[in-house]
Amino acid sequence: MKALCYHGPRDIRFESFEDAKLQDDRDVVVKMERCGICGSDLHIYHGQGFSPDLGFCVGHEAVGEVVEVGRSVVQYRPGDRVMISAAVGCGACGPCLAGEVNQCRNNAMQCYGLSHRLEGCQAEAIRVPAGDFNLAKIPDGLTADQALMLTDNLPTAWFGCRNAGISAGQTVVVVGLGPIGLMAVESAFVLGASRVFAVDFVAERRALAAELGATPLHPDTAVAELMEATSGRLADCAVEAVGADASIKLAIALVGRQGVVSVIGVNQTANFDFPMGMAFFKSLSFRIGTCSVPKFWPELVPLIQGGRLHPEQFISHTLPLADGAEAYRLFDARADGALKMVMTA
Amino acid sequence: MKALCYHGPRDIRFESFEDAKLQDDRDVVVKMERCGICGSDLHIYHGQGFSPDLGFCVGHEAVGEVVEVGRSVVQYRPGDRVMISAAVGCGACGPCLAGEVNQCRNNAMQCYGLSHRLEGCQAEAIRVPAGDFNLAKIPDGLTADQALMLTDNLPTAWFGCRNAGISAGQTVVVVGLGPIGLMAVESAFVLGASRVFAVDFVAERRALAAELGATPLHPDTAVAELMEATSGRLADCAVEAVGADASIKLAIALVGRQGVVSVIGVNQTANFDFPMGMAFFKSLSFRIGTCSVPKFWPELVPLIQGGRLHPEQFISHTLPLADGAEAYRLFDARADGALKMVMTA
Amino acid sequence: MKALCYHGPRDIRFESFEDAKLQDDRDVVVKMERCGICGSDLHIYHGQGFSPDLGFCVGHEAVGEVVEVGRSVVQYRPGDRVMISAAVGCGACGPCLAGEVNQCRNNAMQCYGLSHRLEGCQAEAIRVPAGDFNLAKIPDGLTADQALMLTDNLPTAWFGCRNAGISAGQTVVVVGLGPIGLMAVESAFVLGASRVFAVDFVAERRALAAELGATPLHPDTAVAELMEATSGRLADCAVEAVGADASIKLAIALVGRQGVVSVIGVNQTANFDFPMGMAFFKSLSFRIGTCSVPKFWPELVPLIQGGRLHPEQFISHTLPLADGAEAYRLFDARADGALKMVMTA
Amino acid sequence: MKALCYHGPRDIRFESFEDAKLQDDRDVVVKMERCGICGSDLHIYHGQGFSPDLGFCVGHEAVGEVVEVGRSVVQYRPGDRVMISAAVGCGACGPCLAGEVNQCRNNAMQCYGLSHRLEGCQAEAIRVPAGDFNLAKIPDGLTADQALMLTDNLPTAWFGCRNAGISAGQTVVVVGLGPIGLMAVESAFVLGASRVFAVDFVAERRALAAELGATPLHPDTAVAELMEATSGRLADCAVEAVGADASIKLAIALVGRQGVVSVIGVNQTANFDFPMGMAFFKSLSFRIGTCSVPKFWPELVPLIQGGRLHPEQFISHTLPLADGAEAYRLFDARADGALKMVMTA
Repeated sequence: MKALCYHGPRDIRFESFEDAKLQDDRDVVVKMERCGICGSDLHIYHGQGFSPDLGFCVGHEAVGEVVEVGRSVVQYRPGDRVMISAAVGCGACGPCLAGEVNQCRNNAMQCYGLSHRLEGCQAEAIRVPAGDFNLAKIPDGLTADQALMLTDNLPTAWFGCRNAGISAGQTVVVVGLGPIGLMAVESAFVLGASRVFAVDFVAERRALAAELGATPLHPDTAVAELMEATSGRLADCAVEAVGADASIKLAIALVGRQGVVSVIGVNQTANFDFPMGMAFFKSLSFRIGTCSVPKFWPELVPLIQGGRLHPEQFISHTLPLADGAEAYRLFDARADGALKMVMTA
Repeated sequence: MKALCYHGPRDIRFESFEDAKLQDDRDVVVKMERCGICGSDLHIYHGQGFSPDLGFCVGHEAVGEVVEVGRSVVQYRPGDRVMISAAVGCGACGPCLAGEVNQCRNNAMQCYGLSHRLEGCQAEAIRVPAGDFNLAKIPDGLTADQALMLTDNLPTAWFGCRNAGISAGQTVVVVGLGPIGLMAVESAFVLGASRVFAVDFVAERRALAAELGATPLHPDTAVAELMEATSGRLADCAVEAVGADASIKLAIALVGRQGVVSVIGVNQTANFDFPMGMAFFKSLSFRIGTCSVPKFWPELVPLIQGGRLHPEQFISHTLPLADGAEAYRLFDARADGALKMVMTA
Repeated sequence: MKALCYHGPRDIRFESFEDAKLQDDRDVVVKMERCGICGSDLHIYHGQGFSPDLGFCVGHEAVGEVVEVGRSVVQYRPGDRVMISAAVGCGACGPCLAGEVNQCRNNAMQCYGLSHRLEGCQAEAIRVPAGDFNLAKIPDGLTADQALMLTDNLPTAWFGCRNAGISAGQTVVVVGLGPIGLMAVESAFVLGASRVFAVDFVAERRALAAELGATPLHPDTAVAELMEATSGRLADCAVEAVGADASIKLAIALVGRQGVVSVIGVNQTANFDFPMGMAFFKSLSFRIGTCSVPKFWPELVPLIQGGRLHPEQFISHTLPLADGAEAYRLFDARADGALKMVMTA
Repeated sequence: MKALCYHGPRDIRFESFEDAKLQDDRDVVVKMERCGICGSDLHIYHGQGFSPDLGFCVGHEAVGEVVEVGRSVVQYRPGDRVMISAAVGCGACGPCLAGEVNQCRNNAMQCYGLSHRLEGCQAEAIRVPAGDFNLAKIPDGLTADQALMLTDNLPTAWFGCRNAGISAGQTVVVVGLGPIGLMAVESAFVLGASRVFAVDFVAERRALAAELGATPLHPDTAVAELMEATSGRLADCAVEAVGADASIKLAIALVGRQGVVSVIGVNQTANFDFPMGMAFFKSLSFRIGTCSVPKFWPELVPLIQGGRLHPEQFISHTLPLADGAEAYRLFDARADGALKMVMTA
């Protein structure tokens, strides 16, 4: 088969790759129909990935059609159209059974496309381990694009809002308006935010947030403007969707008394410069982590079906998988209005 | 002064009444600007009120201007424009300090306009006990009509939704589409409902709910249609805003497994015929009660300010207080599209 | 093999029965080590069971040793010592994956020993469907008796307390002091109850509750005594562990303002006489349902390991399975101090 | 009157001081019966206080008898025995009415004995602003010592546990075993912890925690021993009751996946060295702040009355107020087994 593979910084190639096939009785092989490029794929693209491997297949977002199932698979049969959870669990340990897939005791933080350990989803076919647990049928009424957004991005945005404890009537600020940040803006309204402030350096992205009903803020003036707009109370919650030290600090500065900061951007700083005195004075709650994707499907699927969330609106480009190198280039450069990049088989 | 007084079934008179004045150092006297007729006022109008008194002033919803304050009042001064909580607490006991005004230990279930014990709000002026506790200034940016809806109806609708435990993604059904039921429909969406079904015998009211985004159902076919629409799962939560035995039973029938029924309609049946076997099978939660009005203002005020709730849209008529008898008649008859009735000084 | 079988009211026989064997790739066969008689088995014993079948094997509580596993079973191998969840789920549907086993869409309310549909656990061996989902290894440090109490009784008592929303500092009342009621008393203290009142007609059972720290009450004087002891406030929550109409009504009478009544006793009354007026005045929450056993293991296992819960203390008799008919007779008659009855292979 | 006053580092003097008297209609003057020295008083004692003032009266924990009330005071009369909340609110703003006293909009973070702004409680008499809001009668059945512990220390310990989200069955670690840390140990058990680990450098304090049922750990080996004791899972929650950078870092290291760290020690570091990568990997929640004392009285009073919490057990010394300088010296030196220091009028 053909797949997108990583060969070094900014070197993604569409090339022949060993066919995805069953390795275990619980495996399922899925023929890819649509796959996405995630902001975290850019860490790999920049040579700051999660393993020293080369030549592995990248990507962790895909929907497609089941083509082969292991003998222990109960729920899926060839022909079923499915979405693949980017978070992968064993499906048998305590955390998995409690819905905390990414705390899986056998498998923690495992994901497709980070190394040769589990090959990626930007490929013509994908091997899914523990298929009964790590897949779901594409729900009635959802398009392939909507289902694709459920494999990682929308659940992550939603998790960020849930982790921020957004409740009805609150003032929310979202820092960083890539696809996930924009979905966090839409999610915050669904969770009852009275007002959402949206912060990004890029004017086009602020304009998109404004179309969703948010009040746009430039990072340089965000604190002062939010002080003004809230009579000094600042936000109740902040969702940080970048992961840079500066943007996390900005999020902390943007919440008021008893504020909650929820970080969904990836940050691996060993010695982050934390304003503890300010945190003490504010009675701050600070939360960071990764998303157990399928845990949120029971909430998100009916919200899409009911027309309350429209994650597909953030797809800017749909290209064939063969043009994957170009898709990465555009996405990395934020060129041509690149927001969410989707590739087709 | 002049006021609307109750003289027996369907006999409400606009007449001279003893002036509202300070009786205690904590009292505040408010000159009425706008007052409302509540569905529960019709219990009195029908002669099924809460006391045998005659000649008392009716009504428990009003906004206005402070004209006199007791010497112990800290927060209000003549000229302040205020809204009056329909639920009245002493402001000093444990439940009051915990926000549960209608569990007040000194004052439980006290309300304006039920008897001579506390004269009503459909009057040119109103004496408010414990003014520091039972009033709030009209919030910035709110119209008098919006503030009026905060004195009872909107908090009650919201309480009904909160008591139903509505959370994002759920399917909600609202039974009874008077002003409070319609506000419950709008509130359910703000709380993240993926779908709201709205049940009433009156076609015009179902049409109003549909305009809010709900799916209208006729009571006679509601169970069958909801079964169909939800593939047999029925609703996650029901808000009952009528109070009749039949409508409460319908609400119980409309929720599925682990469903929650929240009753905000007034029901005083001593021996309600409860389907316990069905409740056991469904793992039902059944909740009923009254609303601690000011407890919900911190959530509701920003939601109106932020343009997410529009309770004033349910006002159908605005008449002078002098025409109060006619206002009651129209409201009782549901004539002339009567929904929320407002009276001006 | 040998098993206890139901042949009509009060006719339980220890007799030869078809061997438990694998019927599906996901099945596990468990050799019984210890099994229990549950209060709900008495419904069957009295001829008021859940099916018209005769000759089926009874019982739904057991621990034992795995002797055979289907080819799709991942987690268990012959020789593993396991506890069997009385609540049985498919392990694949939404509710099962969300921990709500007894809302299983393929299998709702399925349980061992109610009919020939799924033979019971009071047998030398038991076939467990979807073994990976419906079993757990006996946790480190737990005795077989402790594990046996985790298969149904303790999780049910705990669920009753959780459903009652017990939080720290509250006053709790438990109505009915069989093994489950007594475990609810102990559980209520673990959940932070400041005081627990315990109601039963049987003096010995009230004495056992008093040893756990509860204040014993006789049903005939319970309301008056609780009024007195609480200065008229009554209880915050009630756990009802009988299921009779009278005891449910007593539980409703024993809670105060904003009280919660949680019923875990089985009640199938079609037209229960519900005091709606009192419920409205109290702002009552009324909850009833069955327990998704494994959902509570992550909380309960460490509480037993840490020495905070001692469910084994309620075992009054341990007899060989061959004496099962006698065990049923004693339990039904509450003779000889019968509380929890355990049988050994 | 006489009072303890601050005149510079380690210079606390018992001396004549201007009489406490009413300054506002809502004030109450309380004759001190018992007062306490809090760990945070040592910040002042060390010359690292919260203002440059000299000669002000110190202390923020006291119980006593009402001797004078302002004309607007509703609930108190001379002769009432009361406890004084260390957290002082205006009693009228939104946060105060929502129970968040220390977020008071008129008064944030105000406390007795930090400066001349509000004179302290280590005095023969104390002026209490907004007495109706900032006092409570000593509850039935509580000793003066128990009530004294409710003015600050026990609510702070409890807040720390609540902020840590302790729920039944969890493994909890408490870092720092002064009086508040020890109360956090006892509180964690009341909240349902299956195991509590207790960390301090001082062997005597570890021994006290062990008597409460905790497993003692030395800070130098705490991480390794907790790893061992939990099979690598570490704690679910940590309560940090010191406030030093090192102990906060230790608390972060002691929690596992999805762990919560709750800091109640005072820390004002501007640039705390936060291990963000570890936090991300763990999906950490980090919370810090101060306690709204009266918010927790409705939970804590019945727990003391019911015999579940015994905060008075941590009082090591009771001296006359005249010996206050010596009391400070002993407490600071942790000499003579000094734990909680109480002074009498």
